[in-house]
Amino acid sequence: MGIVVNLDGNRSSGPSLDDLRELVAEDLKAVNALIIQHMDSPVQMIPQLASHIIAAGGKRLRPMLTLGAARMCGYSGNRHLGLAATVEFIHTATLLHDDVVDDSDLRRGLASANAVWGNKASVLVGDFLFSRSFQLMVADGSLKILGILSEASAMIAQGEVMQLVTSNDTDTGETAYLDVIKSKTAQLFAAACHVGAIVAKRPKVEEEALDTFGMNLGIAFQLVDDVLDYSAKQATLGKTIGDDFREGKITLPVILAFRRGNDSDRTFWRRTLEDLKQHEGDLEQAIHLLEKYQALEDSVERARHYGAIAHDALGIFNDGEHKRAFKNLIDFCIHRAH
Amino acid sequence: MGIVVNLDGNRSSGPSLDDLRELVAEDLKAVNALIIQHMDSPVQMIPQLASHIIAAGGKRLRPMLTLGAARMCGYSGNRHLGLAATVEFIHTATLLHDDVVDDSDLRRGLASANAVWGNKASVLVGDFLFSRSFQLMVADGSLKILGILSEASAMIAQGEVMQLVTSNDTDTGETAYLDVIKSKTAQLFAAACHVGAIVAKRPKVEEEALDTFGMNLGIAFQLVDDVLDYSAKQATLGKTIGDDFREGKITLPVILAFRRGNDSDRTFWRRTLEDLKQHEGDLEQAIHLLEKYQALEDSVERARHYGAIAHDALGIFNDGEHKRAFKNLIDFCIHRAH
Repeated sequence: MGIVVNLDGNRSSGPSLDDLRELVAEDLKAVNALIIQHMDSPVQMIPQLASHIIAAGGKRLRPMLTLGAARMCGYSGNRHLGLAATVEFIHTATLLHDDVVDDSDLRRGLASANAVWGNKASVLVGDFLFSRSFQLMVADGSLKILGILSEASAMIAQGEVMQLVTSNDTDTGETAYLDVIKSKTAQLFAAACHVGAIVAKRPKVEEEALDTFGMNLGIAFQLVDDVLDYSAKQATLGKTIGDDFREGKITLPVILAFRRGNDSDRTFWRRTLEDLKQHEGDLEQAIHLLEKYQALEDSVERARHYGAIAHDALGIFNDGEHKRAFKNLIDFCIHRAH
Repeated sequence: MGIVVNLDGNRSSGPSLDDLRELVAEDLKAVNALIIQHMDSPVQMIPQLASHIIAAGGKRLRPMLTLGAARMCGYSGNRHLGLAATVEFIHTATLLHDDVVDDSDLRRGLASANAVWGNKASVLVGDFLFSRSFQLMVADGSLKILGILSEASAMIAQGEVMQLVTSNDTDTGETAYLDVIKSKTAQLFAAACHVGAIVAKRPKVEEEALDTFGMNLGIAFQLVDDVLDYSAKQATLGKTIGDDFREGKITLPVILAFRRGNDSDRTFWRRTLEDLKQHEGDLEQAIHLLEKYQALEDSVERARHYGAIAHDALGIFNDGEHKRAFKNLIDFCIHRAH
């Protein structure tokens, strides 16, 4: 079962996170140390479970946004370190709860925390990390940043509830889908970038530009994530595909294929995603329909649109290695094959 | 199956929450309005689920602590209203997650939110309310209060994880149990009272006194709660008893009965609470053992000790109706039959 979306053409030399990662390497080391320090607790299950998900190492994309944004703004202090850790804690708490909500057994190729320690522990340790994130913000001492990040947290939860409500509902349209991914993903990207400008005490126009950059980068990132869930390329990398399909999540590829399809196609989508009556071969049939109606390519095309907005938002900043790394990051988010 | 603990002697005229509730009635009305306002969201499932648990009406004990403490400290502004709402939001988020963790079908005699909307929605709406509580604190604008309440939130989660770890472990001792209930319950009582002194700008000694009052009141409250889970009086009020027993929670009554019992008693506790192999008649046998070893009476006796500390902590405050209401509240927490 092949898939025709060619996301980057040359996998080995495509855009990557490496530019940004190298630029903030020292900072990121300090952030990792802060993360280890603040997830500690006399109740051993907490650091055990937290380190399973945190130390197992995601991309650290969100904290790198805070670090890169602060540095691009010329910041030379160290407040951005604690705030980057805060952002990763919020993200990790969300992941722990997501895996419970999605009944996921796998996370980044490893057993998910809930699969190892159970749903109860994942819910509670998520709550703990979430509280810790606020303690880190309080230690930073900026009410403005507390406002931005607590708003982002509320939006993430609201977006997740929206996603729950639209799950299994093939009537969900592109606007509702966009609302979901803005809330559940892009708002934290935006906040992570925004706080970089705040610690650097940059003018409002730069705060807003970084917020816009993060928001549109986040939308592009999630759009491509949702494409990758149906991508054979993903499968060749040992990742599972079809999770969204099995759960009946209504993502943009499905929304496009549903709207472009005929009655028989829609019957298929309704049976598999609304009624969750799925049989052998249904995922392959879904991918076939997504290809037939160019739903994957066009979802990536939509991602390019948001990537272009993110790109232009950087225009007011001086050229330099950080700005270049952020531009590469946009390309990475759109072209990434993993 | 009778039970010999006589908690108040005369149920109809025992101490109640009414004194305090009447004193803060106007404030509480304003708090309820704030709660309704801030749990709102364009995603309808959020206010629906939140109002199910919030408006269904618990005792509002924790927000009343903030209101009463502020007023006892002579505060005449209105910051205590938003903070009382904050405290109730933290508590409600915790309840939503607790019911998921405990697989509870009932809450305050009604179907629990997770029984109606499912575990996923309860986890996510809990996260939403938790974020909203921080937004309310940010709106209040005191970093000191943010620090106290974010620490309390982290402690609640830590206490819940500790409880999870000690569940089904009959080796759990009284000290470990106390650590659990201090974290999961008493810390929020303490914080709720403490912030009352802060908004009133009272000296540190009064802040500490109110913190001590809340902490010890909370310990007494939870001790009696754990006794009531085995109390026939509870059963006559239409509440379920034996939830802790069925889940294998190790509460003080069990800890005392286990330590005071003989080998055959311990075999019983291990089978029922560790292995969760429970048969018809086991709850009655558990209550029989708790009575035989005076474990319920002596748990209430322990509660009286903490109540006495709470009582003395109020000594530095001027006599008046609020102080009197707080003293009645201690008696209520210890003697309550519901």
